[in-house]
Formats: sequence, structure tokens, C-alpha cells
Amino acid sequence: MSLSIAHLGPTGTYAEAAALTYSQWLTQETGQQSILCSYPSIAQTLEAVANGQASLGVVPIENSLEGSVTMTMDALWRFDNLQIQQALILPIAHALISCASDLALIRAIYSHPQALAQCQGWIDKFLPLAQLVPTNATTEALQHLEQDRTAGAIASQRAAQLYNLPILACPINDYPDNHTRFLVVSLNPSSGGSHTSLAFSVPANIPGALAKLLQIFASRNINLSRIESRPTKRSLGEYLFFIDIEANANDPAIKSAIAELKLHTETLKIFGSYPVLPINSKNQNPTEKDILAQETFE
Amino acid sequence: MSLSIAHLGPTGTYAEAAALTYSQWLTQETGQQSILCSYPSIAQTLEAVANGQASLGVVPIENSLEGSVTMTMDALWRFDNLQIQQALILPIAHALISCASDLALIRAIYSHPQALAQCQGWIDKFLPLAQLVPTNATTEALQHLEQDRTAGAIASQRAAQLYNLPILACPINDYPDNHTRFLVVSLNPSSGGSHTSLAFSVPANIPGALAKLLQIFASRNINLSRIESRPTKRSLGEYLFFIDIEANANDPAIKSAIAELKLHTETLKIFGSYPVLPINSKNQNPTEKDILAQETFE
Repeated sequence: MSLSIAHLGPTGTYAEAAALTYSQWLTQETGQQSILCSYPSIAQTLEAVANGQASLGVVPIENSLEGSVTMTMDALWRFDNLQIQQALILPIAHALISCASDLALIRAIYSHPQALAQCQGWIDKFLPLAQLVPTNATTEALQHLEQDRTAGAIASQRAAQLYNLPILACPINDYPDNHTRFLVVSLNPSSGGSHTSLAFSVPANIPGALAKLLQIFASRNINLSRIESRPTKRSLGEYLFFIDIEANANDPAIKSAIAELKLHTETLKIFGSYPVLPINSKNQNPTEKDILAQETFE
Repeated sequence: MSLSIAHLGPTGTYAEAAALTYSQWLTQETGQQSILCSYPSIAQTLEAVANGQASLGVVPIENSLEGSVTMTMDALWRFDNLQIQQALILPIAHALISCASDLALIRAIYSHPQALAQCQGWIDKFLPLAQLVPTNATTEALQHLEQDRTAGAIASQRAAQLYNLPILACPINDYPDNHTRFLVVSLNPSSGGSHTSLAFSVPANIPGALAKLLQIFASRNINLSRIESRPTKRSLGEYLFFIDIEANANDPAIKSAIAELKLHTETLKIFGSYPVLPINSKNQNPTEKDILAQETFE
């Protein structure tokens, strides 16, 4: 039986590329086949997994330029039955896609706000007068480019191939080291691995409360690879903290740290321990052939 | 001579309301008059101040529901000559603005992605089938609502008044406690006050590095009101940290903490000490009359 993998759609998004990478890895490693299901938002993607409508979900959690994907963090906190099965890191290379015969003819550039932000320097240099139009997904405007030859869109090279559209420039991201980390989540207990993620709220804004909680890890020589705060949504200045630890939750030091953490937090949610999937050149850039092969699973 | 205050435009945005509140406060307290100058982005607003084109800038830094305004943090780090003069906290109440004769006729809702996110629950309940269209500012779609009676926009009540458009529902934000904190910045040294903001990068991802830095404050009983991380943009997993302290940088404990911090950070930027402006009911909601009065300064 095929597993269903929920992701932010439509076809051609980076989230779909990540879901496809995971799906290919799953088949290679376990023989398990899967089908991809596209959802209109990250929240709906995770809700589908939390409700059992999809077996797995693949969502972006962090980009090396734009930082945390706050929608994913808020949804992970809300649907607190989700467990992380795997992390995967994908390189991001943005292309300027357009049917204009020359760059100078482009009057408007459409893309997701994060992609527009990641190419701001390039746009300021080469298309300083173009209007920037935010869209819900990088691929949203692609279907209109043939009709409007003064419009451009920023999306992946793969999206240009899938929609059969010309690339005028690539890569156009301002920083070459542009990566996005995705999480694979499900309702199953996580399988264990090199990284553990958790989040907590603190009883009140006590001076030094966070320093004390971080000291729990530091005193055990546990490396935190990431710490992020999010508003509790109760009152300005009240925060939740999300922490990634470079260790398995079953390690004795982590077990003892978590036990101590429980005493000092209001709510503590443990999203599980998981491996980080190594990406090789084959599954970095799924081709159209991969996509078509994928669709035959449905 | 009038001072120029840069803010994210156009007319009717919450940033303009914040700039106007500050401008009124400045006149009341010091007799100093000012004119508002609208810019198309937060980065361009801060660049205008950093280049001396505008005397002051008013930018959002944090919302109680959506968290940090990352664009402001990244620009503060980049234009490192900016000093914070004041913080001000404004209540946010979103209105659904439309010329539709009935809610059920609305097919699309336009607004800034943060405003759409803050009303997601209300939209799911009352307009589950409406298409959500992101815009660069809450007010961007207002001028098209008279032509398209199947469209709605989410913006402030004040924006509806300014554009003379009907409000179908208000407030529609999912959480009643919705506030945004704005910063007033300039090239002048900050004047001192109850809060201090700083940011730093650390030499490498050393285990417990952040815990050690926070311990510098905790050991002196200094309260941190906020800690946020941002990517360095060099490599995934490398962060800058932004910290707000509830004390003046001239306090001996803070001076000593900052001296110790300098020894352990790669780059340390101090954005100054500043008061938080108390908001009263008069300057919470500037009226159209206030705006017109404001424009006569130009």
C-alpha cells in the first residue's frame, strides 16, 4: 500500500521537490512507495497529517537567509501530536522565468515574499523599476507568463522545466549559500536519530528564566544547534521557545536534562529524535521524469 | 524646521499610524513639528534614515501574534549606525472592508500576509471559500474595492475612513490581544531610557555558547525581555542574536555585562537605550483630521 505524503503545492514548489526527494529515499531504503498530495498552505498540510488524512507531511522549517518558517513552528505547537521522522536540507537556486525577449522589458516580478526577499539585491541591480508582486507560492504566476510578456516570476529551474517556460537568469539569489531545511512529520513515534526538537513555554517572564533553562543543557555539555522564540499569542512580550539538540532523546544526559526541564517549564512538547537525511546530487533536483514516475503511484 | 519621519506607506497603514502617533507626541512634548514621508519597504525606510535622507524612521519590530518583523531586524544589523530613540506599542484591530452588499458575496480577500494570518480563524469560519491574495501593504487593494464588489480587504478602521469605504466586520483578528511594537530610529545617539537593545554574532557554533552569554546577564540579575535569532546568511545553522534588556546601558551592571560580552562575541552592535512611549486613547487612533493637520506641515 502506498503512503500519502502531504506538502505545500502546487507542482513545482520547493516543498514538492523536498517531498519528492523524501519519497524517492523511502522507496530506495525501504521499498515503500508513496504518493504526493498537495495542500494550499503549510497549516493545512500539517492539519492533514494531524487528522490522519495523510500519512506523512513535508514542511519547510528554516531557510539559511530568511530564517524560521514561523507558520510551521506555530502549527507544530498547535497540533502537538506530530512527531518528526526526518530532516532534509535542500539547496535553493532561484531562476528568473519570463517570456520577455529581453530583461529590460520586464515590468513586474511575481513570487513568494521569501523568494522576492532572497533576490532583492539582484532585482535592485538589474530590474530596479520592476513592481514586486507577492504570491502564495513561487509557482503561482507561472501559468500567466505566456499571456503577459512584461511579467517575470522567481521560481526553481525545475518549475521552469515543468511549465515549459524560458529562464532569463539563474541563480539570482543574493547569497550563494541558500538552503532550506524541511521536516518530515507523522503521527507515528519518531524513529530516533542524531537530532531532537522540543518546545516549551515558561510560567512567567522571570528574570534569567531562559538562561537557567539553557544552563540545564550547557551544564551537561549538550549542544543546542538552534533556539528560536515565538509569541505565545496571549500578550506582547510572552514567548514560547523552540530548541534543537544535537543528540538522541534516549541518551542518558538528554533524558536527565528533559526531566529537569519539566520542573521549570509551563508546557513542554517533545517532537522526537530523528536523523538528518544526506542529500546527494541525484535527489537534489528531481527531474520531470521523476515527477511523472511519481504520479504513476497514484 | 520640521523633521522628516520615514515610514512604510502608503496612507492608511499601521506604520503610518505609528509614525503619526510619534509625530503628535513629539509636538506635544517638545514643540518640534515633523512631516511624514512614506517609503515602499521597511528596508528603504531604514536606508533613508541611515543615509540622512530622513531625520527619523518608524518601523515595526514585533507583533504579539506573528512575532518578529525579520526585515526590520536584518536592516538594523546591516545599517549599523542607527540608534533607537523610542519604542511605541500600538493596538491592532483589523476590519474587513468591502463594497459587497453581503459577506457571502466576497470571493477574494486582499491584505498583507501578516494581516491575513492574524485573521485566519475568522476567515475559515465566515469566508472559507474566499481566495486569499497577499499584498505588499494592508491598504494596497483598497482603491480597487469600488470597482470589484466581490473583493474584500483587511486593513485598519482608519484606512476604511481615509478611503471612504464600508466596514463589514471589525475586529476580525483571531486573538483580541493584538499589539505591534514599533521602533523610532535615527542617526543621533539614543537619549537613554528603560530599555536597551543589542545584537551579536558568536565566533563559531560552540556548545553552550549562547547559554554562557545569557549567563553574563543572569548572573547580574539583568532581565532580558526578548531574545531572537536571525540567520547570519553565511551558512544554514549560523545565527545572530538580538537581545532586549530592561535597563539603561549606563547602569553599572549593564556596562559591566556589555564589557564581558565584548570578549565572547564576534561582532557586537548596541542600538542604544530608549523609553517605551505610553499610548493613550487620543493618540491610539489618529483621525482623518489628524492626518490632514499633519499634511499641512509639508
